[in-house]
Amino acid sequence: MEFLTNEKLTIVGAAGMIGSNMAQTALMMRLTPEICLYDPFAPALEGVWEELRHCAFEGVNITWTSDIREALTGAKYVVSSGGAARKAGMTREDLLKGNAEIAAQLGKDIRAYCPDVKHVVVVFNPADITGLVTLIHSGIEPSRISTLAALDSTRLRSELAKYFGISPDEVRNCRTYGGHGEQMAVFASTTLVAGRPLSELIGTEMPEADWHALQQRVIQGGKHIIDLRGRSSFQSPAYLSIRMIAAAMGGEAFGYPAGVYVHNDEFDHILMAMESEITADGVRYKNVQGTPEEHATLTESYRHLCTLRDEVIGMGIVPPVAEWSSLNPHLK
Amino acid sequence: MEFLTNEKLTIVGAAGMIGSNMAQTALMMRLTPEICLYDPFAPALEGVWEELRHCAFEGVNITWTSDIREALTGAKYVVSSGGAARKAGMTREDLLKGNAEIAAQLGKDIRAYCPDVKHVVVVFNPADITGLVTLIHSGIEPSRISTLAALDSTRLRSELAKYFGISPDEVRNCRTYGGHGEQMAVFASTTLVAGRPLSELIGTEMPEADWHALQQRVIQGGKHIIDLRGRSSFQSPAYLSIRMIAAAMGGEAFGYPAGVYVHNDEFDHILMAMESEITADGVRYKNVQGTPEEHATLTESYRHLCTLRDEVIGMGIVPPVAEWSSLNPHLK
Repeated sequence: MEFLTNEKLTIVGAAGMIGSNMAQTALMMRLTPEICLYDPFAPALEGVWEELRHCAFEGVNITWTSDIREALTGAKYVVSSGGAARKAGMTREDLLKGNAEIAAQLGKDIRAYCPDVKHVVVVFNPADITGLVTLIHSGIEPSRISTLAALDSTRLRSELAKYFGISPDEVRNCRTYGGHGEQMAVFASTTLVAGRPLSELIGTEMPEADWHALQQRVIQGGKHIIDLRGRSSFQSPAYLSIRMIAAAMGGEAFGYPAGVYVHNDEFDHILMAMESEITADGVRYKNVQGTPEEHATLTESYRHLCTLRDEVIGMGIVPPVAEWSSLNPHLK
Repeated sequence: MEFLTNEKLTIVGAAGMIGSNMAQTALMMRLTPEICLYDPFAPALEGVWEELRHCAFEGVNITWTSDIREALTGAKYVVSSGGAARKAGMTREDLLKGNAEIAAQLGKDIRAYCPDVKHVVVVFNPADITGLVTLIHSGIEPSRISTLAALDSTRLRSELAKYFGISPDEVRNCRTYGGHGEQMAVFASTTLVAGRPLSELIGTEMPEADWHALQQRVIQGGKHIIDLRGRSSFQSPAYLSIRMIAAAMGGEAFGYPAGVYVHNDEFDHILMAMESEITADGVRYKNVQGTPEEHATLTESYRHLCTLRDEVIGMGIVPPVAEWSSLNPHLK
């Protein structure tokens, strides 16, 4: 009945499918006895709270509120799946603007109510951008925020296992970096398939055309779930993001890339998936190792994210890069 | 990374909200590495399987099939949430008939494909009846089947905690027996509220009218979730039923009543919630202790279940009681 920590975890968007699964997952993992559920939509939120009470978890204090101040006050860990879903007739820009605005408000609320938060995981799309916007407005150190980026890597792992007819466990160190979805950079040289580098198998045992088709299936992995289940994926993003928070609480290591704020000679003023480690000290990234071709795709992915970032700057949701440090002194 | 067992667990109805949560819960609890997902609706089932693959659980072999023979062959543990939900325009009898027929088929399939199953948990409503029908047709020993009945008790625990403004942990040994929902028998004499018997508090610190209103809230607990969330409860039934299977695998004790086949001088040829224990040897019940008034409500609940049972006999879904032993020799 031990917990990883006794500090407060707040789940933002807890009335939704991802958020309610996050709450159950966190309770089952015994992360902390102090779990606060927040959502602006109170009735469904209360329903989630009721369900979790009916599970009869012992030794926990589950609270719910639609008051963001109450939700975040005292929170040391925050996971947010509280974005809007893309609706019919909505353009990509509409979604970007809507969720970037939600992220800006989340950042401001963190600044106001829990500036000493230890770790924040942002899950809503496009997470590289919403995480960056949250970071800028929150004023917290970059090491204290990460975004869910692992799904591309775990989907790649699953597809490679299917293709080669092996257990996913035999696919090791599966990695995609940079942006999410179409702009992700797949690093085939890092991946071992039943002990052999994936890059050796491409063009030999796996024809190039198959590899490209497989990458497309990974990119379309989320859409495929919608086609099959009639709803967006929720179990996998919920589970993986709670695994990230568990690592930030000092629990089991999280073995996949996280989205992290990057500041080096090559990439800067961006948040994207990197080789990373989440510990009780926060998230840290390492420079990515790969072939020149892989590196080129990462650079391309970075440039795409810069374009999205600049769109959000153009919308007035975050200031120009040169002024970020006025909102967040940790961003030089 | 240890598992409770290496034997096969089959989740029937795994494409649904309860079933897909059961699968994730079982994987998180590390019950077994061999998990088979079954549902007649293949596309959504594949979608659930994809999501669970994307969680990247290690050391597990998750399979899916819409062929019940393949699903049950070799299964040592089965949990079924595979009933139909009540739809608009459907009478209570329509639901009873439809789900009793599904239960009869489940029983026949167990007999045909996994007659040596160690434990079956039946979750779909009315579970007292669907569990009984499954038992009769399966031919297995009564100790190897139980039904989810704990939700009434955990809802009572939650409501009492709300009423007295205490943690649910301070409400101990909360029990309802007999049937589910309106016909349940609440045993106030067994429940301790912050160390004091609930029966002492009723009529003193808790006026009778409040107690009756509270019981109504427990009875309407499922409907309340629908009103709040816009969907039937799925997290709590999934979690609790997987806790039951975990106990049957020799894991942590399950601390709430289960529905169990009852055969004694007072109650017979019925399956209902009793004081019970689930271990690796199966489910066993004890005679229920309570006041004469509580006992009278249990008898009433039993009679109601007998009426439902007789309706199902009248529908031709199970034979008359005297002929049960021809289908299942363990039922004298």
